[in-house]
Amino acid sequence: MRICVVGCGAVGSLFAANLATLDDVEVWAFDLNNAHVDAINQNGLQLVGAGEVLGRPHATSDPTAIPACDFGIVATKAMHADAAIAATAHAFAGGAVASVMNGVGNEETLAPHVERVIRGTTFPAGKLLEPGVVQWDVKGDTTFGPFEPRPIRVETIAPLAEACTRAGMPSKAVADARPGQWRKVIFNAATNPMGALTGLTHGRLCERPDLRAVVTGLVDEGKAVAAAQGIELDADPEELIDHAARPDVAYGHKASMLQDVEAHRMTEVDYLNGGIARFGRELGVPTPLHDTITALVKGVEASWAQ
Amino acid sequence: MRICVVGCGAVGSLFAANLATLDDVEVWAFDLNNAHVDAINQNGLQLVGAGEVLGRPHATSDPTAIPACDFGIVATKAMHADAAIAATAHAFAGGAVASVMNGVGNEETLAPHVERVIRGTTFPAGKLLEPGVVQWDVKGDTTFGPFEPRPIRVETIAPLAEACTRAGMPSKAVADARPGQWRKVIFNAATNPMGALTGLTHGRLCERPDLRAVVTGLVDEGKAVAAAQGIELDADPEELIDHAARPDVAYGHKASMLQDVEAHRMTEVDYLNGGIARFGRELGVPTPLHDTITALVKGVEASWAQ
Repeated sequence: MRICVVGCGAVGSLFAANLATLDDVEVWAFDLNNAHVDAINQNGLQLVGAGEVLGRPHATSDPTAIPACDFGIVATKAMHADAAIAATAHAFAGGAVASVMNGVGNEETLAPHVERVIRGTTFPAGKLLEPGVVQWDVKGDTTFGPFEPRPIRVETIAPLAEACTRAGMPSKAVADARPGQWRKVIFNAATNPMGALTGLTHGRLCERPDLRAVVTGLVDEGKAVAAAQGIELDADPEELIDHAARPDVAYGHKASMLQDVEAHRMTEVDYLNGGIARFGRELGVPTPLHDTITALVKGVEASWAQ
Repeated sequence: MRICVVGCGAVGSLFAANLATLDDVEVWAFDLNNAHVDAINQNGLQLVGAGEVLGRPHATSDPTAIPACDFGIVATKAMHADAAIAATAHAFAGGAVASVMNGVGNEETLAPHVERVIRGTTFPAGKLLEPGVVQWDVKGDTTFGPFEPRPIRVETIAPLAEACTRAGMPSKAVADARPGQWRKVIFNAATNPMGALTGLTHGRLCERPDLRAVVTGLVDEGKAVAAAQGIELDADPEELIDHAARPDVAYGHKASMLQDVEAHRMTEVDYLNGGIARFGRELGVPTPLHDTITALVKGVEASWAQ
């Protein structure tokens, strides 16, 4: 089996390094960071932290170098997915491509470029420490399922999930991958931009009743948009939020969007709050809080060019 | 006539310096900034910019030094008014005290300390350049009127307005000062925190349709709270907002709350958005956007201690 990871930042590297430890899987890692690509080709792709792994995928920043693959795993930032899949789609003419990106609407980004799209959600997280070396911060599950508008059979998806699981990334192929995806996007959209706009860690955010009430307002709008699609969430995002606020879990965690804002990097707000709001508009479900939060974060991004 | 300006920052200094140019008014300036007080007593209080004025008020940081006054003008930051009026109330036992502070709810802060309270709103603005010297940025009108729960006669207020006008600060004593006050607080609450949260100037904020829509949402909630009190606004805040966004007016202006946030100074959000929300709760008018914006700005303030 040949798998190409498209976008080999933190999350993409977790997949690429782990999958490359399997004898029966050939892994390609596509990324535009030349230093990272060169380091991987010279010394392998090293994971440290929650798991110690050294994998040796083929790495390239040249999309034409990627051979025909059975599966793709797109792990770019959501706003870079369109350009990345446009450049690499040729490699997936006979294969299927999964999104493991944050937010909602990413499968819709892939669909114009490749025939077979796999809906995916992944919970592991990490960060690039230096070229070729990624810190694995959090382990977690991955779920793959059909992309409903052009569904492929779960049996077609199963070998990808099986390979990931065998490589140390527990994954399931399911008939409906939306409940986990919407649980994750509601969690992220209700907490990430609140950290980004205030500068507060997750725990400090949640212990302020006024801000916690806004978080709940965002969760409620997200639940309404999910329900309008007939999606039954597999867990209550409120419980996940409170769990993460515990001192022994993620009290002091700065949301990734806060890290983006502090570094003046464009955020994924269009695929988190903006994604929920977009689905809400299509379904006739009002999302005034997500609209407000999206506008504020995009205003912050615009201020950097001021 | 003897008038004490309580809080002699930028706006207080505009009143104190101008009033001190009148032969028939004795002006006291109370402020806790000792360098400013000393400079005023040594060299007078100088205004530069929109008006060139040198006034010579008596300045003090010792509240017990203030003699009995006919009028007080409280011009502290809203969150400092309670402590300031508690310390100086003795001087106004036989007089009346006007608020010219930002936001709503300030007269309610003064009322437990002094018998006769005057509702006031002022539009002039400036900034302290150095001790004893204030830049007068914007000229504008001031309106005084009775504080409704314990109304005093407009004739009692008129001498204060007349003195201010004669001193170069055009002022009116009116039967109902709420329309101008609510127009100003709605304008400020709809724009100031949006600049503070995004970092955008007033013009850049207003030219983004997504953010301008949030501004309108805040204006609409503010109008509903004003209407529930029977207040008919004297002008539409929307027009003022669009006017200020013009390149020849205040396109490049950084809102005072943005300046506060950049300097890590506590903001007046509790008296702007928080004030509108508080009146809304008492009147049964929902203000979800003002609640959200208030929580976010207070979260920003909390993050500085993190």
